[in-house]
Amino acid sequence: MAGSTYGTLFTITTWGESHGPALGVVIDGCPAGIPLTADYIQTFLNRRKPGQSKFTTARKESDQVEILSGVLEDITTGTPISLIVHNKDQRSHDYSKIKDCYRPGHADYTFDQKYGLRDYRGGGRTSGRETIGRVAAGAVACRILETLGIRLTTYTKSIGPVMIPDSAYDFDVISENHLYMPNLDYAAQASTYLEKCIQERDSSGGMIECLIDGMPAGIGEPVFDKLDAALAQAVMSIGAVKGIEFGDGFAVTSSTGSINNDAFLSENGQIRKATNHSGGILGGLSDGSQIIFRAAVKPTPSISQPQRTVNTSGDNIEIEISGRHDPVVVPRAVVVVESMAAITLVDLLMQNMHSKIDYLKKIYL
Amino acid sequence: MAGSTYGTLFTITTWGESHGPALGVVIDGCPAGIPLTADYIQTFLNRRKPGQSKFTTARKESDQVEILSGVLEDITTGTPISLIVHNKDQRSHDYSKIKDCYRPGHADYTFDQKYGLRDYRGGGRTSGRETIGRVAAGAVACRILETLGIRLTTYTKSIGPVMIPDSAYDFDVISENHLYMPNLDYAAQASTYLEKCIQERDSSGGMIECLIDGMPAGIGEPVFDKLDAALAQAVMSIGAVKGIEFGDGFAVTSSTGSINNDAFLSENGQIRKATNHSGGILGGLSDGSQIIFRAAVKPTPSISQPQRTVNTSGDNIEIEISGRHDPVVVPRAVVVVESMAAITLVDLLMQNMHSKIDYLKKIYL
Amino acid sequence: MAGSTYGTLFTITTWGESHGPALGVVIDGCPAGIPLTADYIQTFLNRRKPGQSKFTTARKESDQVEILSGVLEDITTGTPISLIVHNKDQRSHDYSKIKDCYRPGHADYTFDQKYGLRDYRGGGRTSGRETIGRVAAGAVACRILETLGIRLTTYTKSIGPVMIPDSAYDFDVISENHLYMPNLDYAAQASTYLEKCIQERDSSGGMIECLIDGMPAGIGEPVFDKLDAALAQAVMSIGAVKGIEFGDGFAVTSSTGSINNDAFLSENGQIRKATNHSGGILGGLSDGSQIIFRAAVKPTPSISQPQRTVNTSGDNIEIEISGRHDPVVVPRAVVVVESMAAITLVDLLMQNMHSKIDYLKKIYL
Amino acid sequence: MAGSTYGTLFTITTWGESHGPALGVVIDGCPAGIPLTADYIQTFLNRRKPGQSKFTTARKESDQVEILSGVLEDITTGTPISLIVHNKDQRSHDYSKIKDCYRPGHADYTFDQKYGLRDYRGGGRTSGRETIGRVAAGAVACRILETLGIRLTTYTKSIGPVMIPDSAYDFDVISENHLYMPNLDYAAQASTYLEKCIQERDSSGGMIECLIDGMPAGIGEPVFDKLDAALAQAVMSIGAVKGIEFGDGFAVTSSTGSINNDAFLSENGQIRKATNHSGGILGGLSDGSQIIFRAAVKPTPSISQPQRTVNTSGDNIEIEISGRHDPVVVPRAVVVVESMAAITLVDLLMQNMHSKIDYLKKIYL
Repeated sequence: MAGSTYGTLFTITTWGESHGPALGVVIDGCPAGIPLTADYIQTFLNRRKPGQSKFTTARKESDQVEILSGVLEDITTGTPISLIVHNKDQRSHDYSKIKDCYRPGHADYTFDQKYGLRDYRGGGRTSGRETIGRVAAGAVACRILETLGIRLTTYTKSIGPVMIPDSAYDFDVISENHLYMPNLDYAAQASTYLEKCIQERDSSGGMIECLIDGMPAGIGEPVFDKLDAALAQAVMSIGAVKGIEFGDGFAVTSSTGSINNDAFLSENGQIRKATNHSGGILGGLSDGSQIIFRAAVKPTPSISQPQRTVNTSGDNIEIEISGRHDPVVVPRAVVVVESMAAITLVDLLMQNMHSKIDYLKKIYL
Repeated sequence: MAGSTYGTLFTITTWGESHGPALGVVIDGCPAGIPLTADYIQTFLNRRKPGQSKFTTARKESDQVEILSGVLEDITTGTPISLIVHNKDQRSHDYSKIKDCYRPGHADYTFDQKYGLRDYRGGGRTSGRETIGRVAAGAVACRILETLGIRLTTYTKSIGPVMIPDSAYDFDVISENHLYMPNLDYAAQASTYLEKCIQERDSSGGMIECLIDGMPAGIGEPVFDKLDAALAQAVMSIGAVKGIEFGDGFAVTSSTGSINNDAFLSENGQIRKATNHSGGILGGLSDGSQIIFRAAVKPTPSISQPQRTVNTSGDNIEIEISGRHDPVVVPRAVVVVESMAAITLVDLLMQNMHSKIDYLKKIYL
Repeated sequence: MAGSTYGTLFTITTWGESHGPALGVVIDGCPAGIPLTADYIQTFLNRRKPGQSKFTTARKESDQVEILSGVLEDITTGTPISLIVHNKDQRSHDYSKIKDCYRPGHADYTFDQKYGLRDYRGGGRTSGRETIGRVAAGAVACRILETLGIRLTTYTKSIGPVMIPDSAYDFDVISENHLYMPNLDYAAQASTYLEKCIQERDSSGGMIECLIDGMPAGIGEPVFDKLDAALAQAVMSIGAVKGIEFGDGFAVTSSTGSINNDAFLSENGQIRKATNHSGGILGGLSDGSQIIFRAAVKPTPSISQPQRTVNTSGDNIEIEISGRHDPVVVPRAVVVVESMAAITLVDLLMQNMHSKIDYLKKIYL
Repeated sequence: MAGSTYGTLFTITTWGESHGPALGVVIDGCPAGIPLTADYIQTFLNRRKPGQSKFTTARKESDQVEILSGVLEDITTGTPISLIVHNKDQRSHDYSKIKDCYRPGHADYTFDQKYGLRDYRGGGRTSGRETIGRVAAGAVACRILETLGIRLTTYTKSIGPVMIPDSAYDFDVISENHLYMPNLDYAAQASTYLEKCIQERDSSGGMIECLIDGMPAGIGEPVFDKLDAALAQAVMSIGAVKGIEFGDGFAVTSSTGSINNDAFLSENGQIRKATNHSGGILGGLSDGSQIIFRAAVKPTPSISQPQRTVNTSGDNIEIEISGRHDPVVVPRAVVVVESMAAITLVDLLMQNMHSKIDYLKKIYL
């Protein structure tokens, strides 16, 4: 595979460049019989679209999605679902500056090295707009998970130095602030910090956390397609993500077995765990408790400060990146992380359907 | 796929249980014409085999590897390489205790949930012995990387609270201590800490770091098979790993663009970066500088302290896990991390061979 | 995979229904640096579009293709190439008849069994229009093969009882007749036969033959992805194809080794074969001589004669299929067979690039 | 993939050479909970092992299979099943003759072209012994199909000019003759014919037919993984197979729609077809009737007649192939065809489990 397809059974293939005519995704392997409308998908795309606040790019895109196949009378038919979003605001720029230089923190240099050329218009395939296809497909995945009683809660845990402690979470307010933070006070602090970043022509990193409730136990495939391994690939494949951790994550390195092990308890015939250091995954399989992971997102590389770099002729130069850029990508990336997680969960739920002969008998006998 | 195969072009399929007759791996897609002997592979397996020090399980296994196919007169033939290691010390245990209870921190419960049964003998497929196949295949991958001038340096960065700062690295001593740490003083401190763990019938976590030198720029496949995404899956698929980060990793969340962006420089006609916050990867492709990542390893779940848990009948019970267990798995996991990284690099180097039509012309015209 | 993606390295993902807004394909893994225009692709689509003669459906479709991504300034960039063809003539039919009954020879019944519902409008996903994506992708594959000096010649070998003997081939006239036959006299006979079929409200089967010249020796992957096995899947996946054979094909069943073996000869330092019973493939790998295969195509199942069948309520009924149908699909399927073969060849040429360590050295050292 | 793995969910990876220490297969994706013993698998291997009659090679191999993993107490555990067969009779030959020349009809030349070298000992990976892994895995697949009430009947339909008409089938006698023919009279004729071949130091081709009963309707994945396309790849991947056809096969080329279409009938609430020209597959999905296909097998290329060929130095030479060779491979290939078909059916039955959201609900709600 050349990298634009993800998933084994529930597969998504994305395509499109920042300044081409359109971007889209083909979802193959979506079961038949699921109610699905463009409006439903649009609610996900709206969470990532630009122009939601002063902290997002000024590019004007409605990001309206169209369903081109795979759905008949608002019901999925089992055939590939092709979704398309037309680019509207691909301004006729003077790209000569960007065309001939390697922006620090961007993939200009590496794409040139790999392909011998690159689509320099607005970052081409490496633009954040590439995630439109992921989110459109994520909406479909979430539709399936809903049907099975599985819910994802995803939000901004930190922006720059402003991090919300677990004890301060109020999930009801996530959608009430443009930063998608589960606490309005911290959101206000983060806003102040971001305004300072903008003034300083700089940008900020941050952290996204995702909680998954309702997953049945036993999902994930040993050895290489463990639930955490699959989620790691899915989330790390999002541009700007530099790390991922599950449960206690990097804190386990200085912990001990007696603390880190989660005791099993039996209550009223139900088995549960006394704690959840593992983040809901044991041996690469869901353990029936809440799944928890965090992703580290780097600061937007496009900043308007002067930066040293090199042009394609190999001269040392200085550039200032003007144009429309988010001072932080974290809030818009929240729904991207949720989408990639949802797609992964659906795929692994499907893969698990072959784990026991009893499941085959249930379907075929 | 059911999870025991990894890789797209250079694929490994591992098999085997802790207490079955043997474990092994089939490597498909290894190019013809590479010198390869069992002795070479053995040097990798020796780095993970038990009994190297007082900090590893007392299980007696020589872990001798045999080549069953794919090599003729010490040269690879291009056909699948089947490697096997026979289990020698699978003691005829009384497994009744482990068979009927769910050990905290282990996959007993999740395997039972997934499959309706599990191989309870020594952890079965979830035993650390599962990594034998990975390491044997990793040796073959490293053989290929050597040929292309690519080198991996992997070591224990921390054990419990004992972490070596970057400035104190001495890579020459890695193989001179059983903890595979690049500093003998810190290794001594870590030993002391581990002895305390053993006395307290407890275990420790730690961190593994991997450096990759000599990678050409442009390796990795956008969008979903980015170099970091692929490495993340590879390394997170190792049991006990709970997080992975690249370059500055989680520290980017509180950094700014002006700091985090690595400036490009041109010197004597060569392009290089002034800093390496990105850890050698930009836009999911290698950028020609050193690749750096760290993996968080949890404390060994098998501890001999009494622990609360549940048996398969759903009763709350207390267990003490006797038997042969490492107080820390980090040192033996070092070569496993290196192996998974090497396999991933080879696979992506192969995938990159189709990126330009010039490459096809170079081979076929 | 759910079946709409084909290929390992050069992958195509098709989507779209007969009466939806559009159909298309996403090609991932196309190397960068190849000249490509919509006009070039259009020449392939024109060979399968309806309305070329009285023997093709009267549906009016220009089948104009648009390139939505992956090409910049008429050069491929290495990113996914998204191609789209809008449906123009999806008449607002009364589908009630077709909706509620199972047409003989069609997939109505089997799709209902699989998915619990189906897109009944013009056959939905099972329409011959599904092949638009294959042909558009086939054009791109042929563009690559051209660059490498590999040529495909595909044509109608027989229609009904009218079969052209090998000795009568005149490849120059293939494009000069609407039946894509390499002999104008036989084409005239076939036309007469088809007119009789039309009068009798019946349809005809036929045979397609494909010749491949210029393939280097050694292409194909043992064991399961042999060149002939891969071509067989590719061509058998085209609706209406009921058989495929290579070289002497089914005739080998009554042949002997002394006849069927092709002797090797050395002439002026070149190795060639004295005969080509094998059809250019030995042990699943190209042997450097011409590759030859034939596909059997069944008669169009849509005929206007009254036919017995069953409706979705389970009643025995009689139907007459009116509407726009080809009395023979063979001529339009010629370019579909060529396309699937070309895609397969490109994929296997790419896969072969990892067969020797020398190839990796050639690219990376 | 490099070609030694087959299947998407139920995957088999084979390895091993004719004269290496052993051959084997790793089956990944086998559901847990299936009774399985080495004895059961052995019954399949015995159908392909040498020495069953005068028409098979005199090589002495018991082909005893061992289960190395994935089975506990005669029940599959869901983890990879590793099966191994040790070579016993890999005589220490003088291979100098075969090593330096290209045998007609064999893959010596093409392997040398692909890999730059080859395992010349007894054909290496291209030996018929490669099929041992397929048959061992096929046994496991058949075990699953049995559980679901699906049965395969596979046999020799023709040897050389001796072909059994459909009307003369007596399936009870298939195992009563060494040629695995469903008619003892025809088997006797075929024996006489083969004796003549042996006398003339020649070999014969033949045809294998496979019938599949009990398949539910709707199995197969449109578009590229149609049931017939998948079976075609599976069967064409067997060395010596040069063609495959389904139902009426190549005869459809001269048929008409009115004859070739199978009418649907409703009887007692059951839908069935009046005829079965389609061979049980419509639109690439099983239609609930008997699946029928035939494979064309070429004459054994190893014949002891003198043959012209070329040596590796490029000289024209004459060779006589001595050694142990079957005058016809058809009878031993019968179980190989059945195995590949069974593996394909299991894989597609698994893939179909995601076709409807109702199936997911049945498993998870």
